[in-house]
Amino acid sequence: MQGYTIAVVGATGAVGTQMIKMLEESSLPISKMRLLASVRSAGETLSFRNEEVVIEETTKEAFDGVDIALFSAGGSISARFAPYAVKAGAVVVDNTSFFRQNPDVPLVVPEVNPEALDKHHGIISCPNCSTIQMMVALEPIRQKWGLDRIIVSTYQAVSGAGQSAINETMNQYSQVINEGYNPKDVTATILPSAGDKQHYPIAFNALPQIDVFTDNDYTYEEMKMTKETKKIMADDNIKVSATCVRIPVLSAHSESIYIETKKIAAIEEVKQAIAQFPGAVLEDDVAHQVYPQAVNAVGAKETFVGRIRKDLDIANGLHMWVVSDNLLKGAAWNSVQIAETLHERALIRPTQEMKFELL
Amino acid sequence: MQGYTIAVVGATGAVGTQMIKMLEESSLPISKMRLLASVRSAGETLSFRNEEVVIEETTKEAFDGVDIALFSAGGSISARFAPYAVKAGAVVVDNTSFFRQNPDVPLVVPEVNPEALDKHHGIISCPNCSTIQMMVALEPIRQKWGLDRIIVSTYQAVSGAGQSAINETMNQYSQVINEGYNPKDVTATILPSAGDKQHYPIAFNALPQIDVFTDNDYTYEEMKMTKETKKIMADDNIKVSATCVRIPVLSAHSESIYIETKKIAAIEEVKQAIAQFPGAVLEDDVAHQVYPQAVNAVGAKETFVGRIRKDLDIANGLHMWVVSDNLLKGAAWNSVQIAETLHERALIRPTQEMKFELL
Repeated sequence: MQGYTIAVVGATGAVGTQMIKMLEESSLPISKMRLLASVRSAGETLSFRNEEVVIEETTKEAFDGVDIALFSAGGSISARFAPYAVKAGAVVVDNTSFFRQNPDVPLVVPEVNPEALDKHHGIISCPNCSTIQMMVALEPIRQKWGLDRIIVSTYQAVSGAGQSAINETMNQYSQVINEGYNPKDVTATILPSAGDKQHYPIAFNALPQIDVFTDNDYTYEEMKMTKETKKIMADDNIKVSATCVRIPVLSAHSESIYIETKKIAAIEEVKQAIAQFPGAVLEDDVAHQVYPQAVNAVGAKETFVGRIRKDLDIANGLHMWVVSDNLLKGAAWNSVQIAETLHERALIRPTQEMKFELL
Repeated sequence: MQGYTIAVVGATGAVGTQMIKMLEESSLPISKMRLLASVRSAGETLSFRNEEVVIEETTKEAFDGVDIALFSAGGSISARFAPYAVKAGAVVVDNTSFFRQNPDVPLVVPEVNPEALDKHHGIISCPNCSTIQMMVALEPIRQKWGLDRIIVSTYQAVSGAGQSAINETMNQYSQVINEGYNPKDVTATILPSAGDKQHYPIAFNALPQIDVFTDNDYTYEEMKMTKETKKIMADDNIKVSATCVRIPVLSAHSESIYIETKKIAAIEEVKQAIAQFPGAVLEDDVAHQVYPQAVNAVGAKETFVGRIRKDLDIANGLHMWVVSDNLLKGAAWNSVQIAETLHERALIRPTQEMKFELL
């Protein structure tokens, strides 16, 4: 076969650049790489497998001849252009939240629910970063013992808010370390959420807000973890409540997860199930201080799981610590992995019935 | 009255220096301040209320004439010298973990269980920093609705590991910001626990280990939160499981706390109860992005509580975010506050019956 024409929309962003890297390493047959971004970046070049690719503006007409389009340029860009990519015959893997709860859109972590891809209508959503790594850690447990409830507190990296948030974090540290600023007085213009009114320091701080608040006093990020878990695991009865917190880590999210299984699980069997699950790596040997750490997870595609232990009181309660690179498994790698899985399942083909509104 | 002779043991440490500051601001009648430390610091001076005080070596004979001795120089120092302070007629407020589970030693958060002081035998323990702020946040809820279980994930500051950990953290950031180190390659010789074998970076990292591991795969820090909660709230039936995590914050611990109350509580009434509780400050207005933040809590004696919301599934489940300065309410201020409460309750007097072993 000749290979696919692949488009990356949002090619210059923190996730887009990682998507290009993941595609460079991918086994997908690729005949042509198209890089799309905003008009500001159009005309610049980026390298793909040692060839310079000129960045094009994202337009409704830009998807002619594209087989696979990976979107990661914000929900409004996906809303506006993904349906035109589908109309042009492409299969879209969308890394934004825009289509995730659409019943015509599979929400996929390839290790967990690849079969959901089979009924796609041209758009597949990549889940939220914080959800994906939790799914990889919990699916092996759900399969063997069932899953009744999840309580999760996250320790999320700033790269989830984009390159500008990384830059601002580094600048804030420079202000404290080199200029003697009090951490509460550093320059803050982006976090906790670029779209919200107030901006707070992240250097030497922990911000219990990611994305904006919904009307139930949870943030959208927290509700994504709840809703996406139910959709990916295809079980509306799983109880999920999240507290999502940004901490001053550059990349790799950590999560403190408490679960209650339906059947009581023995810890050693849980560890074995996780160790055997694709995409999961067991890092759990407290006698030798072995547990997942954000700085070690950067650049890896896997999800690292450790600190697995019984709740002190509840027989079916387990605690664990789960770490993964939010830009890779949490975004770019999971998106490319969806594309690979579509290819393996022979699902890369134009959609017959248009399910999405052309805005 | 003439005033007390007060000794601070560990006067040069991160907590000791804050104890001196809290005593400077205290309403306790103080006639004389004694500053004790290791032989290394003996002969140096520190200022107390604009007078230079010469630091003395901590010895078994150093407590003659002392009325109140505040210990914060590590468990082994307390074990060795606190009984001699009691023998010399002093009341000891010990900030280490050494005596906390001793049935003859009250473990006190003054807003929560001041009555436990009444039966002291010369030593009162100040609880662990991470426990204290949780107690201030939860006691108003326990009083009105009862408390069945607690699941807590902490976001703890490096100052809890002492001044050397603060220095190392700053140095690690300098290595990354100014010298281009990869965060996983910075110099690490202290955290996660000076007493453990392996040392890991904290800059741009999150370490799911505080103190060393016990044989049930929880750390001592985590088990402190469990055991101390039961002792302070005088209820062995409260279920408590903790995950304690160090993050790169200099001072002020944050905690993501989930609780189940015995009776179902209305959120607005919970907020009101917390707002009215001494030592607690309600910071909860998500519509205006108001919630507790570590950088804002530094230097304050209060415990800040926000993000209070119902669990999405469990009627008696509540989530919240609790922040306090670990060196102040978590250590120095709670210790001084215990001394003030002892004074108010006329409990500063020599012990008649010696309960502690003179090593």
